[in-house]
Amino acid sequence: MTNLIQMGKDAKSASRVLATLTTEEKNAALHLIADEIEAQADFVLAENAKDIEDGRAAGLSDAILDRLLLTEQRVKALSDDTRSVANLDDPVGSVMDARVLPNGLRLSRRRIPIGVLGVIYEARPNVTIDIAALSLKTGNAAILRGGKETLRSNIALAKVIQNALEKAGLPISSVQMIDNPDRAIVPEFLRLDEYIDMIIPRGGSGLHRLCIETSTIPVITGGIGICHIFVDESADLEKAVDIVENAKVQRPSVCNALDTLLVHPAVAAEFLPQVAARLAESKVELRAAPKAFSILKNNEDVHPAGEEDFDQEWLALILGVKVVADLDEAIAHIHEHSSEHSDSILTNDFANATRFVDEINSSAVYVNASTRFTDGGQFGLGAEVAVSTQKLHARGPMGLEELTTYKWVAIGDWHVRK
Amino acid sequence: MTNLIQMGKDAKSASRVLATLTTEEKNAALHLIADEIEAQADFVLAENAKDIEDGRAAGLSDAILDRLLLTEQRVKALSDDTRSVANLDDPVGSVMDARVLPNGLRLSRRRIPIGVLGVIYEARPNVTIDIAALSLKTGNAAILRGGKETLRSNIALAKVIQNALEKAGLPISSVQMIDNPDRAIVPEFLRLDEYIDMIIPRGGSGLHRLCIETSTIPVITGGIGICHIFVDESADLEKAVDIVENAKVQRPSVCNALDTLLVHPAVAAEFLPQVAARLAESKVELRAAPKAFSILKNNEDVHPAGEEDFDQEWLALILGVKVVADLDEAIAHIHEHSSEHSDSILTNDFANATRFVDEINSSAVYVNASTRFTDGGQFGLGAEVAVSTQKLHARGPMGLEELTTYKWVAIGDWHVRK
Repeated sequence: MTNLIQMGKDAKSASRVLATLTTEEKNAALHLIADEIEAQADFVLAENAKDIEDGRAAGLSDAILDRLLLTEQRVKALSDDTRSVANLDDPVGSVMDARVLPNGLRLSRRRIPIGVLGVIYEARPNVTIDIAALSLKTGNAAILRGGKETLRSNIALAKVIQNALEKAGLPISSVQMIDNPDRAIVPEFLRLDEYIDMIIPRGGSGLHRLCIETSTIPVITGGIGICHIFVDESADLEKAVDIVENAKVQRPSVCNALDTLLVHPAVAAEFLPQVAARLAESKVELRAAPKAFSILKNNEDVHPAGEEDFDQEWLALILGVKVVADLDEAIAHIHEHSSEHSDSILTNDFANATRFVDEINSSAVYVNASTRFTDGGQFGLGAEVAVSTQKLHARGPMGLEELTTYKWVAIGDWHVRK
Repeated sequence: MTNLIQMGKDAKSASRVLATLTTEEKNAALHLIADEIEAQADFVLAENAKDIEDGRAAGLSDAILDRLLLTEQRVKALSDDTRSVANLDDPVGSVMDARVLPNGLRLSRRRIPIGVLGVIYEARPNVTIDIAALSLKTGNAAILRGGKETLRSNIALAKVIQNALEKAGLPISSVQMIDNPDRAIVPEFLRLDEYIDMIIPRGGSGLHRLCIETSTIPVITGGIGICHIFVDESADLEKAVDIVENAKVQRPSVCNALDTLLVHPAVAAEFLPQVAARLAESKVELRAAPKAFSILKNNEDVHPAGEEDFDQEWLALILGVKVVADLDEAIAHIHEHSSEHSDSILTNDFANATRFVDEINSSAVYVNASTRFTDGGQFGLGAEVAVSTQKLHARGPMGLEELTTYKWVAIGDWHVRK
């Protein structure tokens, strides 16, 4: 019987302890977790094997089973990753804007943990270790809700983490796993605003919408990328083909992959056949709006686009293609259809590049680069908790700093307000 | 007939224009608004007079009527305040963390407006001008929902603002007022997440709770202060009396006023009678827990505290008083009862001051100062949009910067991800 309120209380209580730890103490705990993962690898693999067996019996595809599967090598990667988190800089404790006010009050802002994080994610069991390590590093307690397909693996990994927390002398409630696979528990979880400070959904748009609709806790929404590249009249077309191919083909299943290609009419007749030929090598299906279709109609795997095709996050080898009248129409199209994740212009025109950067307010705006760079690792954040496309708190790739907040600290000399 | 969806669409469209304005253009519009307020003062006063007449007929108290009332002088203050906002620094456009990544991608974060703000507030009509000016200064569109008691005044002020926006050549939908006083419209307003990026409630705990429960838009919660002062054994008791008086009496109706006084047992017998005598001068009623009551029981206006008295934001000349065993119990009491707004320790003990600052994670944590300093103006922010007590986005007094977000801007040299 899952008692969510008790889990919330325990997490809040643990968060008070975590918030006062030094970086050295947190790193020591992370190393103990890494050691424990290695020591308990057989246990974790055995529990994962049961999940895989159930998944196979339930008819999950080989591709999905591979995502759920842990191997000796993958377990080793979990412990290695945990040690890497120990090596990252700790944002907690940094002091900002320190100053002495005119009245002598010494004021500053100090970075502190958020408190208790609630994380809901889908299949892959490595997220359990990943989120636990990032939460602990930033002094946050975490309550995790993993996918039901790897319930046993997740419970095993949480147990391993709690063993290590106990060895470190830390509250085992610092990391808790919801062990009830019933979906009905999620709305209840999302209303624990008395105990949980932030919800991070890691999954598809259905999960994000459920959190937006139901949660009384602030939610970090994002991870849905309807990404655009606009090929301007002055673009280097050869390099543009490389960038479009990279953005669409390198890893089509991720949120920063390209969804819609917009092309200036002056180069459409030359560029579209080139890019279509290159994309055909990777069997990319094109969904072309009328002008683009009239240019490409003799190519294989080119289909007329329905208007809804420009509101799709494809996550597959499919690409919407449209010839727009000019930069104005490209910007207007992006304003209407973008999920504000990652949008790029390819151009050699300085004024157009500047306008695009000024007028597109997506989380990541590019000039002459692939949208695939929107990533915590690529941006040098050292870690990636999520990619936010909302406006509050954090935008784009979220690193460790985005798992913190701040408090104002004011040191007086027996100050009263006049 | 209020069409909220159309208002949302218009606001979003206006926000695209506002986001590209220069600071000079925004300041020029603010000056036009100030001029228009002065030019239309008679109109505004006439509309306000009708609100006041209705309020008197409805039996509103003189104190409340005074809060609703506009006078020539108060209208002049509105235009003066608008010009002051023009003089503030504009946070939009500032660039953070600019760097060239190892692969040559030039990456930075640029501060941009949030987009569309939804603001719900209670009686005072000056909030209409205040929020409109701060939104415009930061390039945000705003949809306002004021209190029904000043509906005519608010509609008049919004009309004045829109006249000025038109003169400035800006979209009049940059600032819109919901003219339907029906309460049933609020839940619908709170679900316009397709168009509104942030909800700021300015009112009591009922309004905040409604927003938390109902809104699908991120909400800035706060403004509820259950504030504590702990008088430690080593405090300068004479100065401590001054600080407690200042925190409780100077302006009891605001969120940073003191609600609970915690006292170390070693000084309770000496300090409590002194502070009670001082507070009696201002007719402060004390609600004392048993130990404090036994010391103060012969004073006038001292009553035994019920346990619920320590979970009250009094907003009145009432103060909870409790003797705690030591710093540990003081911290535990604050963890349990504080709304994480403003909490202070009065001490000359360095270790205790340090522990208090480390372990209390309220929005503002004080040593040897009154809680009354938690204020945008006092903290040097130049303005105050709200006081946040939540963990995400902003904590404590919110200035102009907290009405902005950022985008990542990446300039490549035809970069593809390897």
